Amino acid sequence: MDKRTVGCLGGGQLGRMMVYAAHRLGVRMCVLDPLGEKSPAGQVAEMSVKGSFQDAEAVRALAKKCDILTLEVEHVNAEVLEELHQAGVPVQPLPFVVKLIQDKYVQKVHLQKHGVPLPEFEKVESEADLHSIGERFGYPMMLKSRYGAYDGKGNAVVPNAQGITAAFEKLGGKAGKKLYVEKWAPFKMELAVMVARGVDETMNVTMRTYPVVHTVQRDSVCFTCLTPPVGVTQKQQELAQKIATDAIKSFGDARGIFGVEMFLLEDGSVLLNEIAPRPHNTGHYTMEACGVDQFEQHLRCVLGLPLGDCQLRVGGAMMVNILGQGETPEMVTKTMAPLRRALLVPDAGIHWYGKEGCAKGRKMGHITVTGFTPASALEEIRPVLAAVDGDDAVNKLDVPTKPAPSVGIIMGSDSDLPTMKDAAQVLDDFGIPYEISIVSAHRTPEYMYEYATTAEARGINVIIAGAGGAAHLPGMVAALTPLPVIGVPVKSSTLSGNDSLLSIVQMPKGIPVATVAIGNAANAGLLAVRILGAANPGQRQKMARYMASWLFSRALRFERKIGEV
Amino acid sequence: MDKRTVGCLGGGQLGRMMVYAAHRLGVRMCVLDPLGEKSPAGQVAEMSVKGSFQDAEAVRALAKKCDILTLEVEHVNAEVLEELHQAGVPVQPLPFVVKLIQDKYVQKVHLQKHGVPLPEFEKVESEADLHSIGERFGYPMMLKSRYGAYDGKGNAVVPNAQGITAAFEKLGGKAGKKLYVEKWAPFKMELAVMVARGVDETMNVTMRTYPVVHTVQRDSVCFTCLTPPVGVTQKQQELAQKIATDAIKSFGDARGIFGVEMFLLEDGSVLLNEIAPRPHNTGHYTMEACGVDQFEQHLRCVLGLPLGDCQLRVGGAMMVNILGQGETPEMVTKTMAPLRRALLVPDAGIHWYGKEGCAKGRKMGHITVTGFTPASALEEIRPVLAAVDGDDAVNKLDVPTKPAPSVGIIMGSDSDLPTMKDAAQVLDDFGIPYEISIVSAHRTPEYMYEYATTAEARGINVIIAGAGGAAHLPGMVAALTPLPVIGVPVKSSTLSGNDSLLSIVQMPKGIPVATVAIGNAANAGLLAVRILGAANPGQRQKMARYMASWLFSRALRFERKIGEV
Repeated sequence: MDKRTVGCLGGGQLGRMMVYAAHRLGVRMCVLDPLGEKSPAGQVAEMSVKGSFQDAEAVRALAKKCDILTLEVEHVNAEVLEELHQAGVPVQPLPFVVKLIQDKYVQKVHLQKHGVPLPEFEKVESEADLHSIGERFGYPMMLKSRYGAYDGKGNAVVPNAQGITAAFEKLGGKAGKKLYVEKWAPFKMELAVMVARGVDETMNVTMRTYPVVHTVQRDSVCFTCLTPPVGVTQKQQELAQKIATDAIKSFGDARGIFGVEMFLLEDGSVLLNEIAPRPHNTGHYTMEACGVDQFEQHLRCVLGLPLGDCQLRVGGAMMVNILGQGETPEMVTKTMAPLRRALLVPDAGIHWYGKEGCAKGRKMGHITVTGFTPASALEEIRPVLAAVDGDDAVNKLDVPTKPAPSVGIIMGSDSDLPTMKDAAQVLDDFGIPYEISIVSAHRTPEYMYEYATTAEARGINVIIAGAGGAAHLPGMVAALTPLPVIGVPVKSSTLSGNDSLLSIVQMPKGIPVATVAIGNAANAGLLAVRILGAANPGQRQKMARYMASWLFSRALRFERKIGEV
Repeated sequence: MDKRTVGCLGGGQLGRMMVYAAHRLGVRMCVLDPLGEKSPAGQVAEMSVKGSFQDAEAVRALAKKCDILTLEVEHVNAEVLEELHQAGVPVQPLPFVVKLIQDKYVQKVHLQKHGVPLPEFEKVESEADLHSIGERFGYPMMLKSRYGAYDGKGNAVVPNAQGITAAFEKLGGKAGKKLYVEKWAPFKMELAVMVARGVDETMNVTMRTYPVVHTVQRDSVCFTCLTPPVGVTQKQQELAQKIATDAIKSFGDARGIFGVEMFLLEDGSVLLNEIAPRPHNTGHYTMEACGVDQFEQHLRCVLGLPLGDCQLRVGGAMMVNILGQGETPEMVTKTMAPLRRALLVPDAGIHWYGKEGCAKGRKMGHITVTGFTPASALEEIRPVLAAVDGDDAVNKLDVPTKPAPSVGIIMGSDSDLPTMKDAAQVLDDFGIPYEISIVSAHRTPEYMYEYATTAEARGINVIIAGAGGAAHLPGMVAALTPLPVIGVPVKSSTLSGNDSLLSIVQMPKGIPVATVAIGNAANAGLLAVRILGAANPGQRQKMARYMASWLFSRALRFERKIGEV
C-alpha cells in the first residue's frame, strides 16, 4: 500500500513483529542487525543488512536501501541518524529524540522541564556526590547508568551509605562510566502505557493512547503485563495515560510508538520512570487485545498513514514473557513447556521469536491470554505461568489471585441471604465466577460507596443487589457505577415486598435498575447470564440450551405429577 | 515447540498465512512452489523448494527436507504422496482423501455413500448423456469438470437442452475431459464451515467446528464472507455444522482443516456443495474473529497438537477479498485503494499477500472487519467495499444492508410510542443502532413469536419491550429468546401502570425480565447501554462520562433555579 521501503535498526523480536505488520500492510522492510538475515526480523523481512546498528557505515548502507528509517532498539548510532536526517533521509522517531532518550539523565532533565512528574534525580560525577545526595534523598536510592541500560542492566540499588562504594563500582563509576541517581519511589505497582504519535492528512500531529497495563518485573526483566490493571481506579488510569501523553507531546515532530513506564505510588499519584522510543514489551498484549497492534501502529505513525484504534477489544488481557532456560536440549524443552501448556488455553496467543539458541534469560517468546475480565485472563493464564515458574507462580505475582468474579452479588443484610443464594446457585450452574458481600446503603454507606465505585476496576461486569423495605441499595449502587445493576426486591414482613419492589423499580430518569420479581433472585442470576451473553454468542448458546432443558424438565416433572394423581 | 519440519505443497497466500502460524508456534516450514522462495509462502518460510507440486521429483525433494507433509492446494500429485506415505513419511490430510477430493465426482459418490445430503449428480460420458439426464434433472443444470477446477473455472451452466453442446465443448468434453453434472440447487444463500480434525493425547480423533459463514461469490470467486450469517436461524446453522462435520467424519484418520461449502435452500434444508482439504478463503475471518485461526488450527491438526478453540470472540465479522485489477501502476493503486480505506476503519484487519505482479482477478489480499454484531461489521466494512466495487457495493450483495440494529425496541401498540420514544432518544444519544417495531403478544402472537425467535440471528443484543395493562409482551419475548429483555411498564388509565408493572416484573422463576419504573423508557435505554457495556470498556466509559455530565448539568440547572427564586 506504500511503495516506500522501511529500514529498521535492529532485527530482534520487536523488529520481527514489525515486519509481520509491514507484510500485512504491503510495506517492504529491510533490517540492520549483527545477525543479518538470520536475526529474528531478518528471517522474515524482504531484505537485511548484516552489521551493527551502532556502526555508522552499516547504518548508511541500510539507508541506501530504504526510503525511511526507524528502529526497534534505542541504543543505536544517533549521530549518523542525525547526519542522514540532515541529508534528507526521513528518520522517525526523530534522531534528536533518540539521542535524548539514550542518555537517561538528559531524558529526565528534558521531561522535568516539560512538567512531567518524576522521582527526584541528580547527576553523579563522583563517589563523593553520592554521599551528599544520599543525605538529601535518604536510602535506599537507585543508582543508574546514563547510557546503554536495559532490562535492569545498569541499575544498582544503594541500600545505605555503606553500600555506595559497591554500587558505584558495579556500574563502572570508577572506570568513568556516566551515572545518575534517583530518589527511591515507594511504588504500589508499576504501570505502562503505549503512546502513538503520527500525523493526519494535513500533516498535523495526531496522538492515540493505548490502555494502561500493570507490569510485574522479575529480576528487573518484564515478566507479566495485565490490562486493565486490577486495583487501579479509572481516575488513576486516566492520570497515567495523561502523564504518558504529556511526556510524548514534548518530543516535537517525532513520530512512532513510545513505551512509557511509570510508578503508581500508594497515595495514587503517578511518576514517570522511563520512555522507550519504539514498540515495547509492555505493548505485546495489543496483538490480541486491541484494534490495531503496536507494531502496525508504529509503522502507521512512521509512514504518516492514518492511526489505528487503540481500544481494548476484550475485557482483559495478560501477557507473560518466555525467557530462555539454557542451551541444553533439556533446557530448550523446559523453555518451551509453557507454549505447549498454552495450546490448551482457549484464549492464548502464542508467539515464538525464532531465535537461534536458547541462552538463559533471553527473551524467546511470549504468550498473551485474553478474557472477559482481567481477573479471568489471569485465571486462564494460571497453568501457563505455572509451567514457567512453578505451581505457585501466580501467588508470587503481586496481582490478585482469586478466581475472577464477573458478577457481584450484594445484599443489605445477612437476613437476605436465604433469598439471594438462588442467584449464586444459578451462576454456579452456568460456571460464572461471582463474589458475595453484605453491603448496606444505610448501615455501611461508606463501604457501599467504595464497593460501587471500584466494582468496574475489579473486573465486575454485572451487579446483583438485593434489599427489602425501604430498599435503597440497588439504586444507590447504580448511581455510582456505569455497570448494569439488577435489583432483587426481598419480601418484607410488613408489606410483603411491595415496599421493596417500588423502592427498587421506581428509579428516577437517568439511573436505571433492572428489577426482577419479589424474592426471585434466581431470575436475577439468569438475567446476569443473559446480560453477559448479550455480546457473547457462546454464553448465549448456554442460555438457549438451559431454556430448552428447563422447559423439558418442567414438562417431565408435570407428567410425573399427573401420573401420581 | 515441535522439532519436526512441516513441508507444504503450494506456496500461495494460504501457505504464507500457515507459515506465520508456524512461526508463532516455533515450528519450521519448507514450501514447494514453482516460484520457490519468491512465492508468498516461500518469502517467509525457513526453507523452500522450487518446483511444481504436481511433479513427483519435486515432491520427493520436499519430503527429504521435512518430517511431515501437508498442502495448501489439493491439485497436487496425490500418487507420489501416497507412495511417500507408504514409505513411512507422514502426510496429512491422508493422500487417499486428497485423491478422493480431487475427483469431484468420486468425492460426491463417497459423500453420498456416507449419507451426506447433496444435489443430485451423475457421471457424464458423452454429450448424449446430458440430454437424457436433462430430461430427468430439468434445466438449468450445472456441468462440472471432475478434475482441477477452482474459483468457478471448470463449471458451466446448461440453461436448456439447446445449451448442452456449448457447455460440453466449453469444459472440453469433446476433447475427452472428464465431466459430471449436478441438478440445479435453488439456493437461498451459500454457507461455509471450517472443520478441524486432529487427535487427542491418546491419538483418538478429535474434531472442532468453526461458526457458519454466509459467502457471496462474484464471477464464481469468493467475494465476501459474513459470520454469523444474518437471516439463518440457529437451527439452520447447527444443521450446516452437522452436515459439514458428518462429511469430514467420513475421511477415516485424515487430519487437518477442511473447508466445507454448502447451499441453504429456501425450505431451510442444507446440501453440501464441495470440500477443500486445507485452509480455505471462507476461513480467513478466523484470524481476527476466533480463538485460534484456521492456519494455526491446521498445523495443530497435522502435528497432533491439542486443537484450539473455534468460537467467535466478536459479535460478527465480515471479510472481503481484494482481487488484482491489472498490472499497470494505476491498476495497482486501484487494487490497493480498499486497503488504504480500511486504515480508517477501527476494527479492520488488513492482509496483503506480497505477490509479485497484480494480474487481473488474482487474489492479492483480504480485509476482515469485526463488530459487535454481523450487521455492524457489515456497516463498518461498507466504505471498504465501496472502494472495491463502487458506492453501491453493499447493495449489490445479497445480504442485509440496513444499519446494524443492536437493540430491538418493541411495544404492544402505537399508543405506547410517546412513552417508548425516550428509549430511542437515549440510544441515539449514545450512537447505538436500534430498530423499533409494533409487536403485540395478544393481537399479533405469531409475529411476536417470529420476532423473538429470530432477534438473536438478526444481530440484536438487547430487547426493550414496552406494554401496558395485562402486559405480557416483555415476559413472552423473554421466554422465546436467550437475549436480555428490558420491560417498560407503560402507564395505564385504569390502574396508573400498577397493572403493567406487576404483569412485567412478577415473572416466574426461569424467565427474567429486567423491569424499569412505570413509564420510564429513558431508563430502559440507559439500561440497554449499560448491558452493552458490561463486556465493553469503551462503551462503559461513555456511560461514566454521561453520568458525570448528567449530574453536573442537573446541578447547574438547580443552581439556576435557586438563583431565580
